[in-house]
Amino acid sequence: MRVRHWQGARQRSLSDAVAVEEPLEIRVNDLSLAVTMRTPGQDAELAVGFLATESILRGPDDLLDVTSCADPAHPKIRNIVNVYTAPERVPQDIHRITQRYANSSCGLCGRATIEEACAASPPLASGMLLSRDTIALLPERLQAVQYMFSKTGGLHAAGLFTAHGKLICAAEDVGRHNAADKVIGHALISGFWPLDEIVLMVSGRTSYEIVQKALAAKIPAVCAISAASTLAVDLARKSGMILIGFLRGESMNVYSGMDRVTS
Amino acid sequence: MRVRHWQGARQRSLSDAVAVEEPLEIRVNDLSLAVTMRTPGQDAELAVGFLATESILRGPDDLLDVTSCADPAHPKIRNIVNVYTAPERVPQDIHRITQRYANSSCGLCGRATIEEACAASPPLASGMLLSRDTIALLPERLQAVQYMFSKTGGLHAAGLFTAHGKLICAAEDVGRHNAADKVIGHALISGFWPLDEIVLMVSGRTSYEIVQKALAAKIPAVCAISAASTLAVDLARKSGMILIGFLRGESMNVYSGMDRVTS
Repeated sequence: MRVRHWQGARQRSLSDAVAVEEPLEIRVNDLSLAVTMRTPGQDAELAVGFLATESILRGPDDLLDVTSCADPAHPKIRNIVNVYTAPERVPQDIHRITQRYANSSCGLCGRATIEEACAASPPLASGMLLSRDTIALLPERLQAVQYMFSKTGGLHAAGLFTAHGKLICAAEDVGRHNAADKVIGHALISGFWPLDEIVLMVSGRTSYEIVQKALAAKIPAVCAISAASTLAVDLARKSGMILIGFLRGESMNVYSGMDRVTS
Repeated sequence: MRVRHWQGARQRSLSDAVAVEEPLEIRVNDLSLAVTMRTPGQDAELAVGFLATESILRGPDDLLDVTSCADPAHPKIRNIVNVYTAPERVPQDIHRITQRYANSSCGLCGRATIEEACAASPPLASGMLLSRDTIALLPERLQAVQYMFSKTGGLHAAGLFTAHGKLICAAEDVGRHNAADKVIGHALISGFWPLDEIVLMVSGRTSYEIVQKALAAKIPAVCAISAASTLAVDLARKSGMILIGFLRGESMNVYSGMDRVTS
């Protein structure tokens, strides 16, 4: 995109790479479920990961097919992804997903939110240990594949790593949650499943929803460059997840799962 | 919160300030409209700003009352805000707000999204000029009031400034959009309205939704520390908004409204 860059009183017109943002509609068995503003690319992964972290797809066996299609009004833009699964995987109250908390019968507060997440996903059974040396390597390994960020400076990134720090896959998106959905969806589509010995590394902050998505995908560890929120920490502790923040080189804060972070 | 901090092989247990995240339910005339994960504080402002940027409240005259209440299951936690306005301000299809794009009749692509925003909000009529010297001051003036960020490192901030760089109000939140809603709501509640000579400054990136919110509140300029997305730039250009990104000292990118950025 054409932009005018000012540095003090000096200006120049330049062509700047800008992160693309477009709406994507996610359907399950032809039923419209959600629309998210995302960076195009890995759309099937995003939709599959979203459905995995909503506990609709439990693994590769639940994924029957993925198609993308266009809105009739804009036939060239494939902004709809349709995921097919067995009909019994689609709960009756599926539309609660778009109105997650609004009609929650269990109350509206952080504790109730966490109780709901824990009821939907049992505590993590993984006994995975993570060494600090491995953890310290993750930021630079994720950054090395943030191709779009290095051009645009406007994207979140997420990556899945083994407990030894090997990169499984990575994704970038204007939306923090979308990047996490994309890597989880990629793992499910490629049959790299379950994720109970895997670390999710994210480029920014850790909110409640990132921990909730990791828990639903049974990922036992989340690492982030930046801060965590109270609800993120509370849910990680309650579900037995390793949660690390402010990960910068060898410096890190361990919010949860302290006993499984080794030297 | 109690965390374990590692710096290389040295560890210590410390009490760390963590950004609070809690759900807030926004109601209009007793009708549940949305639930957002937010940092408690300025809840009335957040709810009022949300309704202003959804074009339900057009100004202080539309705001009849704001009350907060608790869920019966958790009587001590006031996580519900109820905003009262004249019944005719609540559109029949109000529930489209929670399912914004999903059932959009005008198609699902960036162009359609922008057409919808422009149909809801006419182009900005403000002829406000902004000098680069003023713009360059905004980041440090916003940062000076980011009290919680300096403690937690985990919050977005937004501020409203006059065209001469005077701070009107600022807010912090775990959610980027919530911080913008809070300052817009604060201005509306306090009668500082309209905002057609005001600049919205945000601490992070500029997504489509930030520009859409500014447009709905008739704010003619948005400045951000970090990058803008394609849809944000497209909407700013189409609506006649000044949009500035990568604002660091005297260095900045002008994406839109180049002719109204003066020396």
